[in-house]
Amino acid sequence: MSKKRTIGVVLFPEFELLDVFGPLEMFGIASDSFHINMVAQSKEAVASRQGPKSVVEHTFDEPIFYDILLVPGGQGTRREVDNKAILDWLRLQAHRAEYVSSVCTGSALLAKAGLLDGVRATTNKRSLDWGVSMGPKTLWQRRARWVEDGKIFTSSGISAGIDMSLALIQKILGPEKAQEIAKRAEYSWNQDANHDPFAK
Amino acid sequence: MSKKRTIGVVLFPEFELLDVFGPLEMFGIASDSFHINMVAQSKEAVASRQGPKSVVEHTFDEPIFYDILLVPGGQGTRREVDNKAILDWLRLQAHRAEYVSSVCTGSALLAKAGLLDGVRATTNKRSLDWGVSMGPKTLWQRRARWVEDGKIFTSSGISAGIDMSLALIQKILGPEKAQEIAKRAEYSWNQDANHDPFAK
Repeated sequence: MSKKRTIGVVLFPEFELLDVFGPLEMFGIASDSFHINMVAQSKEAVASRQGPKSVVEHTFDEPIFYDILLVPGGQGTRREVDNKAILDWLRLQAHRAEYVSSVCTGSALLAKAGLLDGVRATTNKRSLDWGVSMGPKTLWQRRARWVEDGKIFTSSGISAGIDMSLALIQKILGPEKAQEIAKRAEYSWNQDANHDPFAK
Repeated sequence: MSKKRTIGVVLFPEFELLDVFGPLEMFGIASDSFHINMVAQSKEAVASRQGPKSVVEHTFDEPIFYDILLVPGGQGTRREVDNKAILDWLRLQAHRAEYVSSVCTGSALLAKAGLLDGVRATTNKRSLDWGVSMGPKTLWQRRARWVEDGKIFTSSGISAGIDMSLALIQKILGPEKAQEIAKRAEYSWNQDANHDPFAK
Protein backbone atom coordinates (compact mmCIF):
# COMPACT_ATOMS: atom_id res chain seq x y z
CA MET A 1 0.00 0.00 0.00
CA SER A 2 1.24 3.50 -0.83
CA LYS A 3 1.96 6.04 1.91
CA LYS A 4 -0.85 8.24 3.20
CA ARG A 5 -0.63 11.65 1.56
CA THR A 6 -1.82 14.90 3.13
CA ILE A 7 -3.85 17.28 0.99
CA GLY A 8 -3.63 20.98 1.84
CA VAL A 9 -6.78 22.73 0.68
CA VAL A 10 -6.37 26.50 0.47
CA LEU A 11 -9.43 28.44 1.61
CA PHE A 12 -10.09 32.16 1.12
CA PRO A 13 -13.27 34.24 1.35
CA GLU A 14 -15.65 33.63 -1.59
CA PHE A 15 -14.11 30.34 -2.63
CA GLU A 16 -16.39 28.27 -4.90
CA LEU A 17 -18.04 25.40 -3.00
CA LEU A 18 -17.84 22.64 -5.58
CA ASP A 19 -14.23 23.50 -6.50
CA VAL A 20 -13.31 22.37 -3.01
CA PHE A 21 -15.83 19.69 -2.15
CA GLY A 22 -16.06 17.92 -5.51
CA PRO A 23 -12.39 16.85 -5.37
CA LEU A 24 -12.53 16.27 -1.59
CA GLU A 25 -15.42 13.84 -2.05
CA MET A 26 -13.23 11.77 -4.39
CA PHE A 27 -10.06 11.94 -2.27
CA GLY A 28 -12.18 11.36 0.83
CA ILE A 29 -13.56 8.07 -0.46
CA ALA A 30 -9.94 6.85 -0.50
CA SER A 31 -9.45 7.85 3.13
CA ASP A 32 -6.81 5.14 3.58
CA SER A 33 -4.61 6.99 1.10
CA PHE A 34 -5.41 10.68 1.70
CA HIS A 35 -5.76 12.92 4.73
CA ILE A 36 -7.48 16.29 4.22
CA ASN A 37 -6.39 19.57 5.86
CA MET A 38 -8.20 22.87 5.42
CA VAL A 39 -5.64 25.71 5.39
CA ALA A 40 -6.12 29.49 5.37
CA GLN A 41 -4.48 32.76 6.32
CA SER A 42 -6.25 32.90 9.70
CA LYS A 43 -8.13 30.44 11.91
CA GLU A 44 -11.48 32.15 11.34
CA ALA A 45 -14.07 30.07 9.47
CA VAL A 46 -14.12 31.00 5.79
CA ALA A 47 -17.31 31.86 3.91
CA SER A 48 -17.74 30.43 0.41
CA ARG A 49 -19.18 32.49 -2.46
CA GLN A 50 -22.47 30.66 -1.85
CA GLY A 51 -22.51 31.50 1.86
CA PRO A 52 -21.76 28.30 3.83
CA LYS A 53 -18.63 28.58 5.97
CA SER A 54 -15.85 26.04 6.38
CA VAL A 55 -13.74 25.49 9.47
CA VAL A 56 -9.98 26.14 9.12
CA GLU A 57 -7.59 23.61 10.67
CA HIS A 58 -4.20 25.15 9.92
CA THR A 59 -2.84 28.57 8.97
CA PHE A 60 -0.15 29.62 6.50
CA ASP A 61 2.34 30.38 9.28
CA GLU A 62 2.33 26.83 10.66
CA PRO A 63 5.39 24.81 9.61
CA ILE A 64 3.45 22.08 7.83
CA PHE A 65 4.17 20.87 4.32
CA TYR A 66 1.53 19.17 2.23
CA ASP A 67 2.01 16.35 -0.28
CA ILE A 68 -0.77 17.62 -2.49
CA LEU A 69 -2.06 21.19 -2.82
CA LEU A 70 -5.63 21.89 -3.89
CA VAL A 71 -6.33 25.49 -4.93
CA PRO A 72 -9.98 26.28 -5.63
CA GLY A 73 -11.36 29.13 -7.69
CA GLY A 74 -14.30 31.41 -7.06
CA GLN A 75 -15.00 35.12 -6.97
CA GLY A 76 -12.43 35.52 -4.18
CA THR A 77 -9.52 34.78 -6.53
CA ARG A 78 -10.00 38.27 -8.04
CA ARG A 79 -8.87 39.67 -4.70
CA GLU A 80 -6.41 36.96 -3.68
CA VAL A 81 -4.18 37.47 -6.74
CA ASP A 82 -3.06 40.62 -4.89
CA ASN A 83 -2.62 38.91 -1.51
CA LYS A 84 1.12 38.47 -0.89
CA ALA A 85 0.51 36.04 2.00
CA ILE A 86 -1.28 33.46 -0.12
CA LEU A 87 1.09 33.83 -3.09
CA ASP A 88 4.15 33.40 -0.84
CA TRP A 89 2.59 30.35 0.80
CA LEU A 90 1.76 28.78 -2.55
CA ARG A 91 5.36 29.29 -3.75
CA LEU A 92 6.78 27.85 -0.52
CA GLN A 93 4.50 24.80 -0.65
CA ALA A 94 4.51 24.13 -4.39
CA HIS A 95 8.24 23.54 -4.62
CA ARG A 96 8.09 20.78 -1.99
CA ALA A 97 4.71 19.31 -2.86
CA GLU A 98 4.49 16.08 -4.81
CA TYR A 99 1.47 17.39 -6.73
CA VAL A 100 -0.08 20.82 -7.16
CA SER A 101 -3.70 21.02 -8.34
CA SER A 102 -6.18 23.78 -9.02
CA VAL A 103 -9.82 24.05 -10.03
CA CYS A 104 -11.41 26.83 -12.07
CA THR A 105 -9.76 30.24 -11.47
CA GLY A 106 -7.48 28.68 -8.83
CA SER A 107 -4.98 28.46 -11.69
CA ALA A 108 -4.91 32.28 -11.84
CA LEU A 109 -3.50 32.21 -8.29
CA LEU A 110 -0.86 29.66 -9.27
CA ALA A 111 -0.05 31.73 -12.38
CA LYS A 112 0.23 34.98 -10.40
CA ALA A 113 2.57 33.20 -7.98
CA GLY A 114 4.79 32.41 -10.99
CA LEU A 115 4.21 28.68 -10.61
CA LEU A 116 2.81 28.19 -14.11
CA ASP A 117 5.59 29.91 -16.10
CA GLY A 118 6.28 27.62 -19.08
CA VAL A 119 3.65 25.17 -17.82
CA ARG A 120 0.67 23.91 -19.84
CA ALA A 121 -2.46 24.78 -17.84
CA THR A 122 -6.15 25.61 -18.10
CA THR A 123 -8.82 27.51 -16.19
CA ASN A 124 -12.53 28.39 -16.13
CA LYS A 125 -13.77 29.01 -19.66
CA ARG A 126 -15.84 32.03 -18.59
CA SER A 127 -12.82 33.77 -17.03
CA LEU A 128 -10.24 32.65 -19.56
CA ASP A 129 -9.05 36.11 -20.59
CA TRP A 130 -8.59 37.20 -16.99
CA GLY A 131 -6.79 33.97 -16.10
CA VAL A 132 -4.51 34.38 -19.10
CA SER A 133 -3.69 37.94 -18.02
CA MET A 134 -2.47 36.62 -14.64
CA GLY A 135 0.07 34.32 -16.31
CA PRO A 136 1.51 35.73 -19.54
CA LYS A 137 4.23 33.06 -19.53
CA THR A 138 1.79 30.18 -18.96
CA LEU A 139 1.05 27.88 -21.89
CA TRP A 140 -2.73 28.26 -21.58
CA GLN A 141 -4.87 25.49 -23.09
CA ARG A 142 -8.17 26.95 -24.27
CA ARG A 143 -9.84 23.59 -24.86
CA ALA A 144 -9.24 21.11 -22.04
CA ARG A 145 -11.31 19.57 -19.27
CA TRP A 146 -8.06 19.46 -17.30
CA VAL A 147 -4.34 19.61 -18.04
CA GLU A 148 -1.57 17.51 -16.50
CA ASP A 149 1.95 18.90 -16.91
CA GLY A 150 4.53 17.21 -14.72
CA LYS A 151 3.35 17.52 -11.15
CA ILE A 152 0.84 20.27 -11.91
CA PHE A 153 -2.84 19.46 -12.56
CA THR A 154 -5.13 22.37 -13.48
CA SER A 155 -8.80 22.01 -14.34
CA SER A 156 -11.51 23.96 -16.10
CA GLY A 157 -14.50 25.44 -14.29
CA ILE A 158 -16.12 24.13 -11.12
CA SER A 159 -17.30 20.56 -11.82
CA ALA A 160 -14.22 19.85 -13.97
CA GLY A 161 -12.32 19.61 -10.70
CA ILE A 162 -14.04 16.29 -10.04
CA ASP A 163 -12.72 14.80 -13.31
CA MET A 164 -9.26 16.23 -12.63
CA SER A 165 -9.10 14.87 -9.09
CA LEU A 166 -9.98 11.40 -10.37
CA ALA A 167 -7.14 11.72 -12.90
CA LEU A 168 -4.76 12.64 -10.08
CA ILE A 169 -6.02 9.72 -8.00
CA GLN A 170 -5.49 7.48 -11.04
CA LYS A 171 -1.91 8.75 -11.30
CA ILE A 172 -1.25 7.93 -7.65
CA LEU A 173 -3.37 4.83 -6.99
CA GLY A 174 -3.93 3.44 -10.48
CA PRO A 175 -6.92 3.29 -12.85
CA GLU A 176 -8.83 0.54 -11.04
CA LYS A 177 -8.95 2.48 -7.78
CA ALA A 178 -9.98 5.69 -9.57
CA GLN A 179 -12.80 3.82 -11.34
CA GLU A 180 -13.91 2.27 -8.07
CA ILE A 181 -14.06 5.70 -6.41
CA ALA A 182 -16.06 7.23 -9.28
CA LYS A 183 -18.49 4.31 -9.08
CA ARG A 184 -18.86 4.65 -5.31
CA ALA A 185 -19.75 8.30 -5.80
CA GLU A 186 -22.18 7.24 -8.59
CA TYR A 187 -20.25 9.70 -10.77
CA SER A 188 -19.98 9.30 -14.56
CA TRP A 189 -16.32 10.24 -14.85
CA ASN A 190 -15.24 12.10 -17.99
CA GLN A 191 -11.88 10.37 -18.39
CA ASP A 192 -10.81 12.31 -21.48
CA ALA A 193 -8.85 15.41 -20.49
CA ASN A 194 -9.39 16.83 -23.99
CA HIS A 195 -13.18 16.46 -24.00
CA ASP A 196 -14.28 19.98 -23.13
CA PRO A 197 -17.89 20.69 -24.08
CA PHE A 198 -17.67 24.11 -22.41
CA ALA A 199 -14.82 25.58 -24.51
CA LYS A 200 -15.90 28.18 -27.06
CA MET B 1 -39.15 37.30 -10.74
CA SER B 2 -40.11 34.53 -8.30
CA LYS B 3 -39.72 34.99 -4.54
CA LYS B 4 -36.44 34.16 -2.86
CA ARG B 5 -36.66 30.73 -1.25
CA THR B 6 -34.71 29.61 1.80
CA ILE B 7 -33.04 26.20 1.74
CA GLY B 8 -32.58 24.45 5.07
CA VAL B 9 -29.65 22.05 4.82
CA VAL B 10 -29.63 19.47 7.62
CA LEU B 11 -26.16 18.68 8.94
CA PHE B 12 -25.19 15.79 11.24
CA PRO B 13 -21.82 14.18 12.06
CA GLU B 14 -20.42 12.11 9.18
CA PHE B 15 -22.59 13.69 6.51
CA GLU B 16 -21.28 13.08 2.97
CA LEU B 17 -19.55 16.16 1.54
CA LEU B 18 -20.79 16.08 -2.04
CA ASP B 19 -24.37 15.25 -0.99
CA VAL B 20 -24.45 18.73 0.54
CA PHE B 21 -22.16 20.80 -1.61
CA GLY B 22 -23.06 19.43 -5.05
CA PRO B 23 -26.65 20.69 -4.76
CA LEU B 24 -25.58 23.86 -2.93
CA GLU B 25 -23.24 24.76 -5.80
CA MET B 26 -26.21 24.63 -8.18
CA PHE B 27 -28.65 26.50 -5.91
CA GLY B 28 -25.87 28.93 -5.02
CA ILE B 29 -25.31 29.95 -8.64
CA ALA B 30 -28.93 31.16 -8.60
CA SER B 31 -28.30 33.26 -5.49
CA ASP B 32 -31.04 35.71 -6.53
CA SER B 33 -33.57 32.93 -6.08
CA PHE B 34 -32.19 30.86 -3.18
CA HIS B 35 -30.77 31.60 0.25
CA ILE B 36 -28.84 28.80 1.98
CA ASN B 37 -29.04 28.02 5.72
CA MET B 38 -27.00 25.30 7.43
CA VAL B 39 -29.10 23.74 10.22
CA ALA B 40 -28.16 21.19 12.90
CA GLN B 41 -29.07 19.97 16.37
CA SER B 42 -26.46 22.19 18.05
CA LYS B 43 -24.38 25.21 17.07
CA GLU B 44 -21.13 23.25 17.08
CA ALA B 45 -19.42 22.91 13.68
CA VAL B 46 -20.24 19.53 12.11
CA ALA B 47 -17.57 17.17 10.76
CA SER B 48 -18.28 15.43 7.44
CA ARG B 49 -17.41 11.79 6.85
CA GLN B 50 -14.34 13.03 4.97
CA GLY B 51 -13.20 15.25 7.85
CA PRO B 52 -13.80 18.89 6.85
CA LYS B 53 -16.18 20.70 9.20
CA SER B 54 -19.05 23.00 8.31
CA VAL B 55 -20.31 25.93 10.36
CA VAL B 56 -23.91 25.70 11.65
CA GLU B 57 -26.10 28.80 11.34
CA HIS B 58 -29.33 27.66 12.96
CA THR B 59 -30.46 24.89 15.29
CA PHE B 60 -33.55 22.68 15.29
CA ASP B 61 -35.08 24.59 18.22
CA GLU B 62 -35.14 27.95 16.42
CA PRO B 63 -38.61 28.82 15.10
CA ILE B 64 -37.58 29.07 11.45
CA PHE B 65 -39.37 27.34 8.59
CA TYR B 66 -37.62 26.57 5.34
CA ASP B 67 -39.10 26.60 1.83
CA ILE B 68 -36.87 23.76 0.69
CA LEU B 69 -35.30 21.02 2.81
CA LEU B 70 -32.08 19.32 1.72
CA VAL B 71 -31.26 16.11 3.58
CA PRO B 72 -27.84 14.62 2.76
CA GLY B 73 -26.71 11.05 3.25
CA GLY B 74 -23.45 9.66 4.55
CA GLN B 75 -22.29 7.21 7.18
CA GLY B 76 -23.95 9.36 9.85
CA THR B 77 -27.45 8.45 8.67
CA ARG B 78 -26.97 4.98 10.22
CA ARG B 79 -26.96 6.68 13.62
CA GLU B 80 -29.40 9.53 12.86
CA VAL B 81 -32.29 7.17 11.98
CA ASP B 82 -32.46 6.64 15.76
CA ASN B 83 -32.19 10.33 16.66
CA LYS B 84 -35.64 11.55 17.71
CA ALA B 85 -34.59 15.22 17.51
CA ILE B 86 -33.77 15.09 13.80
CA LEU B 87 -36.81 12.93 12.93
CA ASP B 88 -39.16 15.29 14.80
CA TRP B 89 -37.60 18.31 13.10
CA LEU B 90 -37.92 16.71 9.67
CA ARG B 91 -41.61 15.95 10.28
CA LEU B 92 -42.29 19.47 11.56
CA GLN B 93 -40.51 21.08 8.59
CA ALA B 94 -41.62 18.74 5.83
CA HIS B 95 -45.32 19.43 6.25
CA ARG B 96 -44.83 23.17 5.74
CA ALA B 97 -41.99 23.07 3.19
CA GLU B 98 -42.72 23.71 -0.47
CA TYR B 99 -40.19 21.03 -1.47
CA VAL B 100 -38.39 18.27 0.42
CA SER B 101 -35.23 16.82 -1.12
CA SER B 102 -32.71 14.19 -0.15
CA VAL B 103 -29.47 12.82 -1.54
CA CYS B 104 -28.15 9.27 -1.13
CA THR B 105 -29.12 7.70 2.21
CA GLY B 106 -30.79 10.97 3.25
CA SER B 107 -33.98 9.30 2.03
CA ALA B 108 -33.59 6.70 4.80
CA LEU B 109 -34.00 9.55 7.29
CA LEU B 110 -37.11 10.81 5.50
CA ALA B 111 -38.46 7.25 5.38
CA LYS B 112 -37.80 6.63 9.07
CA ALA B 113 -39.60 9.90 9.86
CA GLY B 114 -42.62 8.43 8.02
CA LEU B 115 -42.44 11.09 5.33
CA LEU B 116 -42.11 8.63 2.45
CA ASP B 117 -45.07 6.37 3.25
CA GLY B 118 -46.80 5.72 -0.07
CA VAL B 119 -44.28 7.95 -1.84
CA ARG B 120 -42.13 6.91 -4.81
CA ALA B 121 -38.49 7.43 -3.80
CA THR B 122 -34.93 6.24 -4.33
CA THR B 123 -31.62 6.10 -2.46
CA ASN B 124 -27.96 5.10 -2.77
CA LYS B 125 -27.64 1.90 -4.80
CA ARG B 126 -24.99 0.47 -2.46
CA SER B 127 -27.23 0.87 0.60
CA LEU B 128 -30.51 0.05 -1.08
CA ASP B 129 -31.50 -2.83 1.18
CA TRP B 130 -30.82 -0.83 4.33
CA GLY B 131 -32.71 2.19 2.94
CA VAL B 132 -35.64 -0.04 2.02
CA SER B 133 -35.71 -1.47 5.56
CA MET B 134 -36.13 2.05 6.98
CA GLY B 135 -39.29 2.64 4.93
CA PRO B 136 -41.35 -0.52 4.40
CA LYS B 137 -44.30 1.61 3.16
CA THR B 138 -42.17 3.59 0.70
CA LEU B 139 -42.54 2.83 -3.02
CA TRP B 140 -38.79 2.35 -3.56
CA GLN B 141 -37.50 2.76 -7.12
CA ARG B 142 -34.48 0.53 -7.64
CA ARG B 143 -33.49 2.08 -10.94
CA ALA B 144 -33.60 5.87 -10.93
CA ARG B 145 -31.07 8.69 -10.93
CA TRP B 146 -33.65 10.63 -8.94
CA VAL B 147 -37.39 10.44 -8.27
CA GLU B 148 -39.89 13.30 -8.15
CA ASP B 149 -43.18 12.53 -6.41
CA GLY B 150 -45.27 15.57 -5.64
CA LYS B 151 -43.15 17.89 -3.54
CA ILE B 152 -40.60 15.21 -2.64
CA PHE B 153 -37.38 14.80 -4.64
CA THR B 154 -35.07 11.93 -3.63
CA SER B 155 -31.85 11.07 -5.43
CA SER B 156 -29.47 8.15 -5.77
CA GLY B 157 -25.96 8.17 -4.38
CA ILE B 158 -23.72 11.18 -3.85
CA SER B 159 -23.23 12.85 -7.26
CA ALA B 160 -26.84 12.08 -8.27
CA GLY B 161 -27.81 14.92 -5.94
CA ILE B 162 -26.41 17.38 -8.48
CA ASP B 163 -28.73 16.08 -11.22
CA MET B 164 -31.67 16.06 -8.81
CA SER B 165 -31.04 19.63 -7.62
CA LEU B 166 -30.97 20.83 -11.23
CA ALA B 167 -34.33 19.09 -11.77
CA LEU B 168 -35.73 20.89 -8.73
CA ILE B 169 -34.34 24.20 -9.98
CA GLN B 170 -35.94 23.45 -13.35
CA LYS B 171 -39.27 22.89 -11.61
CA ILE B 172 -39.01 26.22 -9.81
CA LEU B 173 -37.20 28.47 -12.28
CA GLY B 174 -37.76 26.73 -15.61
CA PRO B 175 -35.56 24.70 -17.97
CA GLU B 176 -33.59 27.62 -19.43
CA LYS B 177 -32.38 28.75 -16.02
CA ALA B 178 -31.47 25.19 -14.99
CA GLN B 179 -29.49 24.73 -18.23
CA GLU B 180 -27.73 28.05 -17.69
CA ILE B 181 -26.72 27.03 -14.17
CA ALA B 182 -25.38 23.63 -15.31
CA LYS B 183 -23.37 25.40 -18.02
CA ARG B 184 -21.96 27.93 -15.57
CA ALA B 185 -20.79 25.06 -13.39
CA GLU B 186 -19.35 23.38 -16.53
CA TYR B 187 -21.48 20.40 -15.52
CA SER B 188 -22.81 17.86 -18.04
CA TRP B 189 -26.26 17.47 -16.54
CA ASN B 190 -27.92 14.05 -16.77
CA GLN B 191 -31.45 15.32 -17.42
CA ASP B 192 -33.04 11.88 -17.56
CA ALA B 193 -34.26 10.81 -14.12
CA ASN B 194 -34.52 7.21 -15.35
CA HIS B 195 -30.94 6.98 -16.65
CA ASP B 196 -29.20 5.19 -13.79
CA PRO B 197 -25.93 3.56 -14.81
CA PHE B 198 -25.27 2.59 -11.18
CA ALA B 199 -28.36 0.44 -10.62
CA LYS B 200 -27.71 -3.28 -10.51
